[in-house]
Amino acid sequence: MKTFSIWSSVLVIFLFSPLIITVCHGGNVLVFPTEGSHWVNMKILIEALHARGHNITIVRSDKSWYIEEKSPLYSSITVPVEESIDEEFIQKIIMLGFDIQRGKISVMNFVSMQIQMFGGLTKAHHMASKIAEAIFKDSMLTKRIQESQYDLVLTDPCSGAGTLLAKYFNLPLVYNVRWLPVGEGHFAIAPSPLSYIPLTGSGFSDMMSFTERIRNVIFYLLMLFHDMYLVRPHYQAVCHQYLGPDVDFYSLMQAADLWLMRVDFVFEFPRPTMPNFVYMGGFQCKPAKPLPQDLEEFVQSSGEHGVIIMSMGTFIGQLPHDIAEEIAAAFAQMPQKIIWRYTGERPKTLGNNTLLVKWMPQNDLLGHPKTRAFVAHGGTNGVQEAIYHGMPVVGIPIFFDQYDNLLRLQIRGGAKILDVLTLNKDIVLQALQEVLNEPSYRMNMQRLSRLHLDQPMKPMDRAMFWIEFAMRHKGAAHLRTESYKMPWYAYHSVDVIVVLLAAVLLILLTAVAIIRCLCCKACRARKIKYD
Amino acid sequence: MKTFSIWSSVLVIFLFSPLIITVCHGGNVLVFPTEGSHWVNMKILIEALHARGHNITIVRSDKSWYIEEKSPLYSSITVPVEESIDEEFIQKIIMLGFDIQRGKISVMNFVSMQIQMFGGLTKAHHMASKIAEAIFKDSMLTKRIQESQYDLVLTDPCSGAGTLLAKYFNLPLVYNVRWLPVGEGHFAIAPSPLSYIPLTGSGFSDMMSFTERIRNVIFYLLMLFHDMYLVRPHYQAVCHQYLGPDVDFYSLMQAADLWLMRVDFVFEFPRPTMPNFVYMGGFQCKPAKPLPQDLEEFVQSSGEHGVIIMSMGTFIGQLPHDIAEEIAAAFAQMPQKIIWRYTGERPKTLGNNTLLVKWMPQNDLLGHPKTRAFVAHGGTNGVQEAIYHGMPVVGIPIFFDQYDNLLRLQIRGGAKILDVLTLNKDIVLQALQEVLNEPSYRMNMQRLSRLHLDQPMKPMDRAMFWIEFAMRHKGAAHLRTESYKMPWYAYHSVDVIVVLLAAVLLILLTAVAIIRCLCCKACRARKIKYD
Repeated sequence: MKTFSIWSSVLVIFLFSPLIITVCHGGNVLVFPTEGSHWVNMKILIEALHARGHNITIVRSDKSWYIEEKSPLYSSITVPVEESIDEEFIQKIIMLGFDIQRGKISVMNFVSMQIQMFGGLTKAHHMASKIAEAIFKDSMLTKRIQESQYDLVLTDPCSGAGTLLAKYFNLPLVYNVRWLPVGEGHFAIAPSPLSYIPLTGSGFSDMMSFTERIRNVIFYLLMLFHDMYLVRPHYQAVCHQYLGPDVDFYSLMQAADLWLMRVDFVFEFPRPTMPNFVYMGGFQCKPAKPLPQDLEEFVQSSGEHGVIIMSMGTFIGQLPHDIAEEIAAAFAQMPQKIIWRYTGERPKTLGNNTLLVKWMPQNDLLGHPKTRAFVAHGGTNGVQEAIYHGMPVVGIPIFFDQYDNLLRLQIRGGAKILDVLTLNKDIVLQALQEVLNEPSYRMNMQRLSRLHLDQPMKPMDRAMFWIEFAMRHKGAAHLRTESYKMPWYAYHSVDVIVVLLAAVLLILLTAVAIIRCLCCKACRARKIKYD
Repeated sequence: MKTFSIWSSVLVIFLFSPLIITVCHGGNVLVFPTEGSHWVNMKILIEALHARGHNITIVRSDKSWYIEEKSPLYSSITVPVEESIDEEFIQKIIMLGFDIQRGKISVMNFVSMQIQMFGGLTKAHHMASKIAEAIFKDSMLTKRIQESQYDLVLTDPCSGAGTLLAKYFNLPLVYNVRWLPVGEGHFAIAPSPLSYIPLTGSGFSDMMSFTERIRNVIFYLLMLFHDMYLVRPHYQAVCHQYLGPDVDFYSLMQAADLWLMRVDFVFEFPRPTMPNFVYMGGFQCKPAKPLPQDLEEFVQSSGEHGVIIMSMGTFIGQLPHDIAEEIAAAFAQMPQKIIWRYTGERPKTLGNNTLLVKWMPQNDLLGHPKTRAFVAHGGTNGVQEAIYHGMPVVGIPIFFDQYDNLLRLQIRGGAKILDVLTLNKDIVLQALQEVLNEPSYRMNMQRLSRLHLDQPMKPMDRAMFWIEFAMRHKGAAHLRTESYKMPWYAYHSVDVIVVLLAAVLLILLTAVAIIRCLCCKACRARKIKYD
């Protein structure tokens, strides 16, 4: 399941990455976003940049299913692409994922799905590289971009196309990133011991058993293989053709000026980092606004018991039928009122206390004084919002980094994770009762909230400061190590170790030779004496 | 010279560390400072904490030669010690250092001096551990400290006594630190590749040649030896006696809540860091205040040429006679006026344009519009002030981290380093003229100044925020990795690598055995067939 979750993650996060362009002055920011929940995040940054008077230009494909061509926030350049991965394909993969976890799929189907996943992943990276290529080929477009005098490229490193653009147009490069499959630490040159830094998608904590440490290393090797053979070649080909025969794609990523990380260390386990990593976890969080009147009335009708809210995030509007029935049946037995964001067929077991909605103001509900618990899939956004509002969580992770995200809350005593494989009415009911009745869940989440809110500046202000810093100073080269330019054996001091060991060996051998020589002489002398 | 500089550095930085205590409320901070220039730094933090309404208590020895017993800023506990290293001893070592660098010392004297240095160093750590022991033995005093309900211990990790106090009284531990001999990176669990992270005192940059990389590794091994055999045993003995038989002194250091680093990445080479490292480089810097009238008149009398200022820092008020004469002679030939902080005998070659002073308002002079250059020894404080004010530097490093500090400016094109070994009038003259006449020096320093000043919050505010954060939350455990508790072989995944290699070997051997078996069978079958 872990392996599955990573492949699919990479696929969905990234997709057939779109891009955009504006001409104006303020700052001028060229954005190459990725589809799905990553676009939700990027859009929040774009809104903030727009509010501060910057001009944003977005590069998108003409088959984008998330990123609108027209927006008051940005202008866009739409690049025609021949192929695309559409939402339908993603939904199919997600449902297959549920089936795998519920043990409802045969080995052959599993293999077929893995092949589809690999194929989709390869296709997604191929298409992203094709968007970059399409721009480089179009001399009118490149001229227009050059004349627009952008100050920097803002992109998600899940797709490599933004990185290629930054190099081609010689612009500072700022990443907006949650994680990289191979571990953003290893990649961006903060050495990250695999002994206590679990790869995202591994499902491990920073305290691993011996077997977990073995699996973390194997998982790393798998991800390395995936990166080297499924991702890199697409971009490397474009690199060689348009940026120069000696340009290495990975080095371009490692030369990024800033990495805006969508985590902080209230959420993430402490780990080595670099001066050009800016932690902006919770940048999207804000105090709750009043609810729409009908929702407020529903919430108030819950009385002293309060409400539970449930959402499975951007992608998972519906669940497999049997799972939805079990959850609905559990909800029906709770004294609380429930607000459930659900787009699927109405479960038969749904109680009168449960309100199904197609969309809900999640942040405003999480910050409402009547809300008692959050049933969530564990996407980074939802988890950060739960931390911000100090809300205990019942987690039902499905894909990607969701289990990892929830694990970070569970270890801190603020969440209980359910396994979708064994989930039934009683288990859901028991989990809800435990999280609601044990005061420790709420106390721990409120402690995390206090820690998260006690920062010298708001995460969004920090993100804005550093993006604008990169504009003012044409990058942030002084914060970035150049060590990635060293050959691997030099970086790891292999050559030094070999020379030092050889020197020690030489000294030892010389010493032995001298001692032997002296002994021989002594023996001979003694022999002569006694002869 | 490099080895000498490190030993002496550790000795002088640290010394027979003093400590202090207050009772009150605000926050209550227990400070264990170290002598010399480190006290200058610590005092600036103490002033800021005092201004914010915190109560400070300092622990000092009764033989302290820098830290006053009485001050409006703090109350103090003076601990009687039997031995001390006095200022005279330090001055003797400094002058010996000059002689070594000038090639004026015999091999025997060099060896004798190294022995003195080692002896002094061992004595300093021994005495620091004795201060801690004296407190733990005094039940009245420990009771008084316990009753004072301190919120945290603020100390310099150059001496281990503050660390022992924090553990004994179970208080959060905050370090105010420039560097550790063995590399604060390695020590505090941000893995720090020796291939591009030069040890302080090595005199290397982050771009090392092959031989420099070898020397950096050897230097690291030397420092490790020094730490393990000259430093640790003193504190470990006290640990065992008063904190428990299983308490490891190094683990106590690694468990520090916060490391307030007196550098930033405008000054320091970019390198891996940890979430509980707060960079406050330049925290002591502030805009220039008006000069005293007589000094202002002297500065104004320089006309369009402006002034050059020279200071060799806290310890080095005077120079060996011949060096002082050469520098004075060079100054006499400059069209600028010179203000020289010098406590030694007046050089015969001193020109009319040079004003000798016992003390000068260095920060106010560095920020004065008439000041053209700064002749400095390269202490961290002076270098950070030069960056703050964008002032080009002619550096004459003598000891400790001074060469390293100046190297960071020289690499960025803002300073020229002179070798005290070969220094004469002409060399000084030429360096001054180069730094004054080449506009690049001033431009580069002003670029560094712009980068340094362009921060989301002032370094001192950042330091105050995090100290108070540790008070509010009883430490900062969520920012600190616990990986130091792992056995070394697990931390470095040695056990995992062995198991994986064994598995690969087993698979290969099995494969070979199967193939051999099949081949044998095939051969036999063929033999039977042909027989």
